[in-house]
Amino acid sequence: MEIAYRPIRIALLGAGSVGSQVARLLIENRDELAQRVGADLELVGIAVRNLDSARNGNLPKALLTLDAEALIKAADIVIELIGGIEPAKSYITLALNSGADVITANKALIAAHGTELFDLAEQLGAQLYFEAAVGGAIPIIRPLRESLAGDKVNKVMGIVNGTTNFILDRMASTGASFEDALAEAQQLGYAEADPTADVEGYDAASKAAILASLAFHTEMPVENVYREGISQVTALQIETAREAGYSVKLLAICERVPAIDGQPEGIVARVHPTLIPDDHPLAAVRGAYNAVFIEAESAGRLMFYGAGAGGPETASAVLGDLVGAAKRHLAGGPGIADSVHANLDILPVQAISTRFQITLQVNDLPGVLASVATVFAQHGVSVETVDQNAAGENTGALLTIMTHEAGEGELEAVVEDLRGNAAVQKVNSVIRVEGI
Amino acid sequence: MEIAYRPIRIALLGAGSVGSQVARLLIENRDELAQRVGADLELVGIAVRNLDSARNGNLPKALLTLDAEALIKAADIVIELIGGIEPAKSYITLALNSGADVITANKALIAAHGTELFDLAEQLGAQLYFEAAVGGAIPIIRPLRESLAGDKVNKVMGIVNGTTNFILDRMASTGASFEDALAEAQQLGYAEADPTADVEGYDAASKAAILASLAFHTEMPVENVYREGISQVTALQIETAREAGYSVKLLAICERVPAIDGQPEGIVARVHPTLIPDDHPLAAVRGAYNAVFIEAESAGRLMFYGAGAGGPETASAVLGDLVGAAKRHLAGGPGIADSVHANLDILPVQAISTRFQITLQVNDLPGVLASVATVFAQHGVSVETVDQNAAGENTGALLTIMTHEAGEGELEAVVEDLRGNAAVQKVNSVIRVEGI
Repeated sequence: MEIAYRPIRIALLGAGSVGSQVARLLIENRDELAQRVGADLELVGIAVRNLDSARNGNLPKALLTLDAEALIKAADIVIELIGGIEPAKSYITLALNSGADVITANKALIAAHGTELFDLAEQLGAQLYFEAAVGGAIPIIRPLRESLAGDKVNKVMGIVNGTTNFILDRMASTGASFEDALAEAQQLGYAEADPTADVEGYDAASKAAILASLAFHTEMPVENVYREGISQVTALQIETAREAGYSVKLLAICERVPAIDGQPEGIVARVHPTLIPDDHPLAAVRGAYNAVFIEAESAGRLMFYGAGAGGPETASAVLGDLVGAAKRHLAGGPGIADSVHANLDILPVQAISTRFQITLQVNDLPGVLASVATVFAQHGVSVETVDQNAAGENTGALLTIMTHEAGEGELEAVVEDLRGNAAVQKVNSVIRVEGI
Repeated sequence: MEIAYRPIRIALLGAGSVGSQVARLLIENRDELAQRVGADLELVGIAVRNLDSARNGNLPKALLTLDAEALIKAADIVIELIGGIEPAKSYITLALNSGADVITANKALIAAHGTELFDLAEQLGAQLYFEAAVGGAIPIIRPLRESLAGDKVNKVMGIVNGTTNFILDRMASTGASFEDALAEAQQLGYAEADPTADVEGYDAASKAAILASLAFHTEMPVENVYREGISQVTALQIETAREAGYSVKLLAICERVPAIDGQPEGIVARVHPTLIPDDHPLAAVRGAYNAVFIEAESAGRLMFYGAGAGGPETASAVLGDLVGAAKRHLAGGPGIADSVHANLDILPVQAISTRFQITLQVNDLPGVLASVATVFAQHGVSVETVDQNAAGENTGALLTIMTHEAGEGELEAVVEDLRGNAAVQKVNSVIRVEGI
């Protein structure tokens, strides 16, 4: 391809693990990228907070600047890899107002302020790309926005947080407790010193909000995503699941709920530990890998699998967006445009029905099973299987109960009654089941 | 979204299993699609060969026409779902020359004449979309062209033919022979009465050519794809693989071969039965499902999984392309453009090294193992493991040998010598091994 256009000026904001990889790839692969795009991609500067920070050691000193705003104003395309809400949001706003296209990997910002930023971009005829914000290297935004644009998505289930998948995988393969598996993840650099955002599901909830918005053409505020983390998951629970043929995964689930009883069609997004059968494709996603499983009306079952984080991996997604943005810049014309035209109702988690597995510590006496079964029946929750084992630590027995589909409200009432039942020593765990 | 543009005129060529689903979706989801695109998508006609054919029973009679050429000339976007080379190629050429964008699911045509058609489209400023040509509903073309546009793909391994995957899966799960599993696939409608295109790997080879062209920015003629089918795979071979922890899959493999010994960097595409370890993501792809596994320099390991065929599933991919084409039509500007700028050398299958598993029927006598091992050593092929079992049907023993990486030429020489070795009753199977 002939290179006849002036260089396209790229500004990079942030030189952390992803930013430094993006810079490296832009510099090392400059000729190849120029061939692919049809114009030179010139990295004109890298905005950092500290010119002497060790991380920037391998980057050309001449490119580093503390003046992000001047850099933004000089660029055709701005790549935001700072993370967090501010100053990232102000920088992106400035870039769009300056006529630049923007690429970001900032899931927290897109989840919290995506609609506002997309609206601004659309008014200005600019583009905002964010493939790296969900699933790291895995192309998932583009397939949802474009490939499935003519289909109707009914459900999205994603393993979208590598830290928690690593922890649950270690607990399953070694029998470790949550605390020990977390400590190992921290030692290996898979978990932060403060792991709250990962283990309590906040990171996954941001991604669930983004996935739901794309899948259902409806704005999904992150505050409306139901969220439970994995810090309460026990080794016993994972072992009990394994024996029954299930794996425990932290899933981000977004689904369409059909209109019933006068309630209009709506959508629910939720993040919580989930049992999935071992023969489900998501059960095979090990270690820190991510995957997003989609059920669409015509396409059926699809899954996208790959590295969900990591500097080079996330940089790959950023570079993919960059090539797309640069080609659009050269040729003019529009990029991808989304709309939230469907504007479906956002329903609380109580609107869905699902299966549950409940484990109970009970007295090992005649009549206990009948007493427990009566509690389920009283609230209209149908039991599929009951499995009874001698309990390890106490006198008594361990009951593992799998229900048929039941509403959240009915299940909550069952659990409350079980806690008050004289035959029940303890409700060990309550976990939702998907993928059957 | 406001609908202010005149309707976009869609011509459909073919009303088979995919075409009839595309027509149904266009008619049933017309309002929803109009909202997504911002303009009405009007199906103006369906070209068929026979107006009375039963298949067209559910389609509006008024839309059916025998005059494909007149229909094409009246359309903004032409969807070609006839299949085969002619008249599909002439129709697509006419459509592009008439100023229409084209969507096709025709892998044979794209594999054989893709470059010519893409060149024509580019000259005319038109677009040719073909997401449905590989992997049915699975978005694979778009991720390769766009999401990985800033990365360097090193290897693509795909289960791209559902018929052969179904047959191999049945052989593995039931112990059936190839012939019996094929007969079952034919009864269930997974295999054609003449199954040659599927079981001998011709269909997979077309898809390998398309994947290689996209992954490596280099035109890959289908004649240059090395091809072996599955008709020689035996139940014993699958059982032997299973015992060693492997599954047998028909893989389409496209890979970059680094420059060595004065030979320039090049690419190899091949289709053959392959052993993959049971913990590899491709091993979990069961039944008629497809999956494409990609290794890229920065993105690492990615996999895309879903239904590889079927009317509604393939129709989903066609509709995704249609929404993209229609948005481009509305907004003007370019669509996706490819280039074959890398233009790497296409190398024969002999240019790659891989591991092999060889199974041999040998005399069960002292010295036989030494004699066999010597043959491998003489040709510089390093043996990793040897496993000896009493043979079932004959006097003698069954040797299962796993090699380290070896060249195709060396391995061929080994097999020829083994066939001439007095201790060897029979070379049962030779199969390549990937994914370790």
